[in-house]
Amino acid sequence: MSENVGDFARLDTDRAQRRGYPEAVFCEGKTPDQVAAIAQRFAETGDATLFTRASASHAAAVLSVLPSAFHDPLARVLAYPAEPPAPAGKSVLVVCAGTSDLPVAREALHTARHLGRDTSLIADVGVAGLQRILDVQDQLRAAGVIIVAAGMDGALPGVVAGLVSAPVVAVPTSVGYGAGAGGIAPLLTMLNACAPGVGVVNIDNGYGAGHLAAQIAAP
Amino acid sequence: MSENVGDFARLDTDRAQRRGYPEAVFCEGKTPDQVAAIAQRFAETGDATLFTRASASHAAAVLSVLPSAFHDPLARVLAYPAEPPAPAGKSVLVVCAGTSDLPVAREALHTARHLGRDTSLIADVGVAGLQRILDVQDQLRAAGVIIVAAGMDGALPGVVAGLVSAPVVAVPTSVGYGAGAGGIAPLLTMLNACAPGVGVVNIDNGYGAGHLAAQIAAP
Amino acid sequence: MSENVGDFARLDTDRAQRRGYPEAVFCEGKTPDQVAAIAQRFAETGDATLFTRASASHAAAVLSVLPSAFHDPLARVLAYPAEPPAPAGKSVLVVCAGTSDLPVAREALHTARHLGRDTSLIADVGVAGLQRILDVQDQLRAAGVIIVAAGMDGALPGVVAGLVSAPVVAVPTSVGYGAGAGGIAPLLTMLNACAPGVGVVNIDNGYGAGHLAAQIAAP
Amino acid sequence: MSENVGDFARLDTDRAQRRGYPEAVFCEGKTPDQVAAIAQRFAETGDATLFTRASASHAAAVLSVLPSAFHDPLARVLAYPAEPPAPAGKSVLVVCAGTSDLPVAREALHTARHLGRDTSLIADVGVAGLQRILDVQDQLRAAGVIIVAAGMDGALPGVVAGLVSAPVVAVPTSVGYGAGAGGIAPLLTMLNACAPGVGVVNIDNGYGAGHLAAQIAAP
Amino acid sequence: MSENVGDFARLDTDRAQRRGYPEAVFCEGKTPDQVAAIAQRFAETGDATLFTRASASHAAAVLSVLPSAFHDPLARVLAYPAEPPAPAGKSVLVVCAGTSDLPVAREALHTARHLGRDTSLIADVGVAGLQRILDVQDQLRAAGVIIVAAGMDGALPGVVAGLVSAPVVAVPTSVGYGAGAGGIAPLLTMLNACAPGVGVVNIDNGYGAGHLAAQIAAP
Amino acid sequence: MSENVGDFARLDTDRAQRRGYPEAVFCEGKTPDQVAAIAQRFAETGDATLFTRASASHAAAVLSVLPSAFHDPLARVLAYPAEPPAPAGKSVLVVCAGTSDLPVAREALHTARHLGRDTSLIADVGVAGLQRILDVQDQLRAAGVIIVAAGMDGALPGVVAGLVSAPVVAVPTSVGYGAGAGGIAPLLTMLNACAPGVGVVNIDNGYGAGHLAAQIAAP
Amino acid sequence: MSENVGDFARLDTDRAQRRGYPEAVFCEGKTPDQVAAIAQRFAETGDATLFTRASASHAAAVLSVLPSAFHDPLARVLAYPAEPPAPAGKSVLVVCAGTSDLPVAREALHTARHLGRDTSLIADVGVAGLQRILDVQDQLRAAGVIIVAAGMDGALPGVVAGLVSAPVVAVPTSVGYGAGAGGIAPLLTMLNACAPGVGVVNIDNGYGAGHLAAQIAAP
Amino acid sequence: MSENVGDFARLDTDRAQRRGYPEAVFCEGKTPDQVAAIAQRFAETGDATLFTRASASHAAAVLSVLPSAFHDPLARVLAYPAEPPAPAGKSVLVVCAGTSDLPVAREALHTARHLGRDTSLIADVGVAGLQRILDVQDQLRAAGVIIVAAGMDGALPGVVAGLVSAPVVAVPTSVGYGAGAGGIAPLLTMLNACAPGVGVVNIDNGYGAGHLAAQIAAP
Repeated sequence: MSENVGDFARLDTDRAQRRGYPEAVFCEGKTPDQVAAIAQRFAETGDATLFTRASASHAAAVLSVLPSAFHDPLARVLAYPAEPPAPAGKSVLVVCAGTSDLPVAREALHTARHLGRDTSLIADVGVAGLQRILDVQDQLRAAGVIIVAAGMDGALPGVVAGLVSAPVVAVPTSVGYGAGAGGIAPLLTMLNACAPGVGVVNIDNGYGAGHLAAQIAAP
Repeated sequence: MSENVGDFARLDTDRAQRRGYPEAVFCEGKTPDQVAAIAQRFAETGDATLFTRASASHAAAVLSVLPSAFHDPLARVLAYPAEPPAPAGKSVLVVCAGTSDLPVAREALHTARHLGRDTSLIADVGVAGLQRILDVQDQLRAAGVIIVAAGMDGALPGVVAGLVSAPVVAVPTSVGYGAGAGGIAPLLTMLNACAPGVGVVNIDNGYGAGHLAAQIAAP
Repeated sequence: MSENVGDFARLDTDRAQRRGYPEAVFCEGKTPDQVAAIAQRFAETGDATLFTRASASHAAAVLSVLPSAFHDPLARVLAYPAEPPAPAGKSVLVVCAGTSDLPVAREALHTARHLGRDTSLIADVGVAGLQRILDVQDQLRAAGVIIVAAGMDGALPGVVAGLVSAPVVAVPTSVGYGAGAGGIAPLLTMLNACAPGVGVVNIDNGYGAGHLAAQIAAP
Repeated sequence: MSENVGDFARLDTDRAQRRGYPEAVFCEGKTPDQVAAIAQRFAETGDATLFTRASASHAAAVLSVLPSAFHDPLARVLAYPAEPPAPAGKSVLVVCAGTSDLPVAREALHTARHLGRDTSLIADVGVAGLQRILDVQDQLRAAGVIIVAAGMDGALPGVVAGLVSAPVVAVPTSVGYGAGAGGIAPLLTMLNACAPGVGVVNIDNGYGAGHLAAQIAAP
Repeated sequence: MSENVGDFARLDTDRAQRRGYPEAVFCEGKTPDQVAAIAQRFAETGDATLFTRASASHAAAVLSVLPSAFHDPLARVLAYPAEPPAPAGKSVLVVCAGTSDLPVAREALHTARHLGRDTSLIADVGVAGLQRILDVQDQLRAAGVIIVAAGMDGALPGVVAGLVSAPVVAVPTSVGYGAGAGGIAPLLTMLNACAPGVGVVNIDNGYGAGHLAAQIAAP
Repeated sequence: MSENVGDFARLDTDRAQRRGYPEAVFCEGKTPDQVAAIAQRFAETGDATLFTRASASHAAAVLSVLPSAFHDPLARVLAYPAEPPAPAGKSVLVVCAGTSDLPVAREALHTARHLGRDTSLIADVGVAGLQRILDVQDQLRAAGVIIVAAGMDGALPGVVAGLVSAPVVAVPTSVGYGAGAGGIAPLLTMLNACAPGVGVVNIDNGYGAGHLAAQIAAP
Repeated sequence: MSENVGDFARLDTDRAQRRGYPEAVFCEGKTPDQVAAIAQRFAETGDATLFTRASASHAAAVLSVLPSAFHDPLARVLAYPAEPPAPAGKSVLVVCAGTSDLPVAREALHTARHLGRDTSLIADVGVAGLQRILDVQDQLRAAGVIIVAAGMDGALPGVVAGLVSAPVVAVPTSVGYGAGAGGIAPLLTMLNACAPGVGVVNIDNGYGAGHLAAQIAAP
Repeated sequence: MSENVGDFARLDTDRAQRRGYPEAVFCEGKTPDQVAAIAQRFAETGDATLFTRASASHAAAVLSVLPSAFHDPLARVLAYPAEPPAPAGKSVLVVCAGTSDLPVAREALHTARHLGRDTSLIADVGVAGLQRILDVQDQLRAAGVIIVAAGMDGALPGVVAGLVSAPVVAVPTSVGYGAGAGGIAPLLTMLNACAPGVGVVNIDNGYGAGHLAAQIAAP
C-alpha cells in the first residue's frame, strides 16, 4: 500500500482511494533532486498531485520532469496536471485581509481548485475599513465555505463568520511584526473568535486550508 | 436588530435569521442573576438556546426560569427546549481520546444535536493502543464530519484524518500536566497534523467544535 | 515632597501639583490595615483619591475611615470624595465587547469621571454581531476619546478605531480561556490592530485606561 | 467607497473623510511593482500619503512615480507631498532613550508632522544617566503629547509619564539582545509602567505612535 | 561530610566550613514534620540557620523545637539563634519600589543580617515619583551593596545602579498583573537594565538576594 | 482486543501481551466512581495494575474494591497486587536532588518495582553540595539504569550521566518558583545536558520514568 | 585526567575509561582552526572520535588532518576511524517520520554504529498514512531499542512505543513551520506521549539520541 | 553634565565622577560613522573607554580615530587606551564551560581588566567531565569574585558557587540549540541555581558581567 522512492520517501499510494484526495508533495526540507525523483514517479503513473512550498529550484526540478505542470511562483505551488478537474460540490470563496496575505490565499485557492472545487478570491478587505467587507456580503453569503487568510490582528475571520451561515476556514499568516510576529497574534485571535463557526489551520498553511475547504464543500 | 437585557447585555436577535443558528449564552464571567435575566427573555419568546460553561449556580438560575431545560452537569450545558430539533444534514461523530476528555466531547455533542444534527460518540480510543481506533474505522468512514477531542499528545485527530475523507474538527483539551499543560501541547500537535483535513478550535471549546461541525454537516 | 505612612508607604504628595491628577491607592498586595492607614491620611487632608483593586475587606477598611466614599464592588473601586469634580474637557466614551468585560469597563469609567471628565458607557457590542457596533456609530463619532474593553479575540478596538477620528484607548481583559487566556490574545490583537489610533494599556487595567483617557480629553 | 488597484489592493478611499487622516501604504510584504502601482494612484489624485517600512527598492519604486516625495532612508519613510501641512493642534515631542532607537523615533516624527502637527525630537536621554532626562524637564512639560521610544529595559516612558501631565505614547523598539530581545522586554515594561498615562503601541511601530499622537494632539 | 536526617534529607554539614556561610532550610515542599526533624538537628548542634518560605504551620513546627528563634511572618523567615552575629564588612542597604514588595525585601534583609552584615531598609521609592529616590541619594551612595526589590515595571534597580558605584543586587517580585505577571516583566527589565552593575536573582528570591549581598559585602 | 468499562473507558486489554507490561490507570480527571468501576474489572480478572496520580478519594475508591492493594499516599500510587513480581533484569537506581522531589522519585520507584525490577533510592544529593553525589559514586556505577528526579536548576542528571556508563532517565519536577517555575527550568536543563546519555520524560512524570527504566533494564 | 588543547579546550581524556564511550567534538561555535587542532590530537593518539554538526569548512579542516575519516555531509558527521567497531549488544533501529527528518536520523545512526551497535534505518513512515508504520511492525518488534525522529506533529514515537516492548528514544526535529516551529510542537508531543516508554532528547539532537540508544543497547 | 555628539548621542559625561567607572560605547545598532564620531570625542579628551559589540566595520571606524586602541576581534571589544590601569582590589577569575563560550568570557575579562582589576581565565571546564572543575578548586577558592560563562545546560555557575565563599557572576551564553536555544535554558538554570551566591546578567552580556565583577572586587 506504500511505495518507496529511493531510500528517502515512501509514497502513501492508497491515499487517493482511502481518503478520496491525491497526495501532495511538501518541498521544503527536500533537495531538488529528491523532488525531481518524486515528480518522476507521477510522470510515470499520470496521477494528479500538487507540489507545495516550492522554491525556484524546486520548481525547476519539477518542471524538468513535468514540463506541462501549472506553476504559480507567488504561491510557490505547482499542480499536475495543469488543468484542474471539473468542479463539483459547493463553492469555495477565498478572502484575504491584505495584499501581503495573497501568497497564502492563492496557495489555498489552487489547492481547492485542483481538488475539484469551484473557487474565487476577494483581496484586501481587512477590518480597518469595515465598509470593504460589508460591500461584499452578498458574495460571502453565496459561498459554500469561506477561507479567510489574515495576518496582523487576524480579526477578519471572526467578523466574516458572524455574517454568514457557512463554515469559515481561518488561516493566519506570518504577516506582521513586533509582539505576536510570525503569525502568533492572528492565530490566537482566530482561536478566540467570538463568533462560532471558525476552524483554524496552522500559520501560512494555505494548502491545509484549501484541502479542508475542499473536503467541507465535497458533493 | 439587537435588544438590550438590563444595561449589561445586548442580544444579537437577528443572528438566527442572519446565520441560521440561534444565539448561545456563555455563562462564565456572568453572575447567576445576569444569566437568569437572559433566560427570562428566552422564556418569553420561546426561542431555542444553549447555556454553556454553566456552573452549578448558573444551572440553578437557568432552571428556576426554564425548569424544563435539558441539563448535563458534566458538560456544563443546558439546552432549551430540552428536545432537540429533528436531525437533518450529515451525521456528526464525536470521538475522544480518553475518559477525561468526555466533558468537552459531550459539550460538542449536545451543541451539534441541538443545532439539528444526528450525533453519536465513541470514547477512549487514544493512539497508545492503536487497535482501538482501527477497530472503529467503519464508524469513522460512515460519518459526515468527525469531531475529535484529545488532550496530552493530541495525536488522535491527525491519525483519524488520515483514515477518512470527511473533514475533522479537532478540539484540544486541557487534560495533561507538565510541559504543554493547559492544552498547549495538543493544540500545537493538531495545528501541525501531518494529515490535511483538520480544522482546530480553541482549547476545551466543545461548543465551538459542535457548532462548526453542525455548519459543515448542514443540509 | 514625599510623606511617609508608617514605615511601609511613601506618598507622592506633590503628584497632584506636578502631574495635575491626584494619587490613587492600588490595594492589591496591601493589608487592609495598611489601606486604612493610608485612607486616614486622606481623611485628614481631604484630598481626593481613588482606591482600586479593592477586595471586600479592603473596601470595609476604607469605608470605616471614609464612610462617605463612593463604592462600586463590581469594579472594585472606591472614590473619595463620592462626588466627582464638575466635568471639563472632551467626553470619554467607554465601550465593552461583552457583559464579562463590565468590571474593567466600569473601573475605567469611574476613574475618568473622578478625574473630571464627562463619561458614558455602551456594553456588549462585540464584533460577532457587527450590527451592534454599527448601530452606535453616531455615539462613537461624538466622543472625544473612546476606551474599548474587550477579551477573547480583542477585535473591537481596531474596528472602532477604523470608524472614528478620535483616539482609542484599548484595554484587554482576562475574559476568555484556552490559548491566549489571561488576556494575552486580546492584548496581542490590540497591539497589532490594522487601524492606527489605538493606544494599549495592560490587561484588566481599567484604572490606567481611565487615567490616560482623562489626560487625552483634558481641557 | 473602496477602489481596486489591480487585483491585489482595495484602497480605503473614504478613510480621509471618515477618520480625518489619509491612508498610508505599509510596504513590507508588497513587491516594488505593487507599491509603484499604488503610488501611481496617488500621483493621479494628488492625495497625500505616507509610505512606511520602505526598503531601498520600495523607495526607488515610489520615487520613480513620485519624484518629489520626501524620503528618510533611516526611518524608511516617504511622504507625498514632501511638504507637510501647516501645523495645527498641540505640539508633539518625540523622545528616545538611545541612539539606536532613532529610526523608530523619526518614523514617528515624520508621521505626526505629515498629519499636521508641530513636532520636535530629543535623542539619547535614557535612565542610566538620569540627569539627561531631568535636564529637559521644561521641554517635556511644554509638550502637548510625548512619544517615547525605548528598547532594552524600556524604563523611560514610565519615568517621563511620572514627570508631566500630558499623555505619553510609548513605542518599544527591538533594540537589545538576550532575554526579552526583539522588543518584548521594553513592551512588558511599558505595559507595566507604575505611572499612569502611558498608551503603548506595537514594537517598532513608529507610524502607529505618530498617528496616535497626532490624533491626541488634534485641534 | 554529609549527614542524613531520616531518609529524606542529607545535610551539607561542611558547607559552613567550605563556603563560610551556614546552610538554610527551604520549607516549601517539605512537610511540617520534616521541617521539625531538621530543626531538631540544629537544636542539638546549636548551629545557626535560617528557615525560609515558612508557612504558619512550618513556623509552628520550628518554634516547637526552637522556641527562641526569631520569626517574621510577613517575610516567612525564622532565624536561629534569634540574635544575629555582630556585623562585619560593608553595609547592605535594601530598597523596595512599593509597599507590596516588602515581604521579599525583608526576607533579603533578615538573610544579610543573620549572615553578619549591617543592614537597613528604605521602602516605597518607585520611579513613578522620581523625587522619592532622588531624595535618598546620600543613603544610596553610602551603602556597600544595594539590594533593590521591585515588581511591575522593575525599573528601579537600573535607575539606582546609574546613581552609585556600589554593585546592585536586583530581585524581581511577583507583584503585578496582566502581561508579564508573576514577575516576568520586572525580571526582563532588570536583565536588560541600561546601567551596568546589576546582578539579578530569581523572582521573589529574597533569600538569594540577601545571601549574595552578604558575600559581596564580606570583610 | 479492547474492552469497554461503562461508556467512558475502553481498556487496552492486549497491551500486556503486545508490550509485555500491564496497563496502568491515570486517576486525575476521572471521578472516584469511574476509578472504582475500573478497579472492579481488575478485581474480577486478577490482572496486575497500577493506579497513579490518585487523590485521597481516588485511593479510597480503589481500596474499597481492592482492599489488599499497596498504597503510598505521598507518591499518590496504588499497586495491585501489593506484592511486586520477583525482580529480573538489571537494577534500577532512583536518585533525587532534594527532599521535595521525593513524591515523584517514589512514584518512579514503585512503578519500576511493580514492573519487575530491583530498585533502590538515594535522596537529597543535589549539586549545591557536590560532595554528596561524589560520595555515592560506587552505587551510581553499580546501577543498570539510573532515574534522576530534580527540580529548580535540574543540573543533577547531567552531572550523574557524566560519571557513569549506564543510561540516565531524567524526570524534571515542578519544585521551584519564579522564572522557569512549574518545572520548565529543569526540563530545559535536562534537554540541554552537556553529557550525553540522558533521556527525558515529562515534568513530574514519575510513572513514565519508572516504566521507561523498567524497559531499559528488562532482562 | 584532562588535557589542554591550546588555551581553548580541555579534553576529558578519562571519559572513555570512566563512561565506556569516547568523547565527541561538537563543531558548532568552534573555528575550523580549533577543530583542526583538536583533530590533530586524535591523529596523534589514534583514539576514536566523532565530529558532529560539522559544516563544510569544519569537515575540510578535519579531513586535512584525518584524511581517512568517514564523512556524511547530510548528517554533518565525521567519524574516525572510518570503520566502526564490530557490533555488540542489542540492535538499534532508527525510524523517521518524513524525508526531511533524515539528516537527524542519520546522525543518530552513525553515532550508534560508531559506538559499537548494529543499526538500521526506516524512512518516511509518518502517521498520516498509518499503514506505512503498521507494515513494518515486525521490524519494530525485533529491535532492541528504537530511535524515532519526527518533526511537525511529532506523533510517531508515541504510536511506535504503543506497539512494542522495547524502549523508544524520541528526537524531535525542527522540521515544520508556523505555531510550534523550530521543533517545539513535536518536543511537547513526545513529552506528552500517551504510551509510556519514550525518553526524549533535545530538538535535532541526533548525536544524543544515538548515544543514549547505544548505552541502552549495550551488551 | 551631558554633552551632545551630533544630534544622535548625548554622552553621560559625569558618569565617571558619579559612578567611578567610565562610560562604554555599545556599537550594535549604531552606524560606523556614528561610532567614529563618538571615538573622536574620546580622542580629544583622552578619557578611557570601551567599545563593545564592535563588528569589523565598527572596529575599523574606531581604529581610524584611535589607532593605538586594543582590539580583540573574537570578543568584539576595543579598549582605549590600550594599556589597562594598574590593578587594584580583589582578583577577578573568569571561568567558561566550553570553547564556544570564549567570546563572552573574554569580553568579561577585558572589561574587568580595563576597569582596573587583576584578571585571569580558565576555559572548558563544564560539568560533563566533573573532574575538570574539581581540578581547579584551588584557583576558584583564591579568587575575589568569579565570573562563570556557560551555555547549553548552564549548570556550571551553581556548581562553582557551591564550592567557594566568593560571589559568582553568572553570564548565560547563546551557545546551544533546540529547546531553550538563544540562551534561555542556561539563563533559567542560573536563576534557579540551588547554591546561593549567584548574580545573573543578561545572555551574552560579557560586558555587564565584567563591570559588575569589577564593582564587587573594588578596593
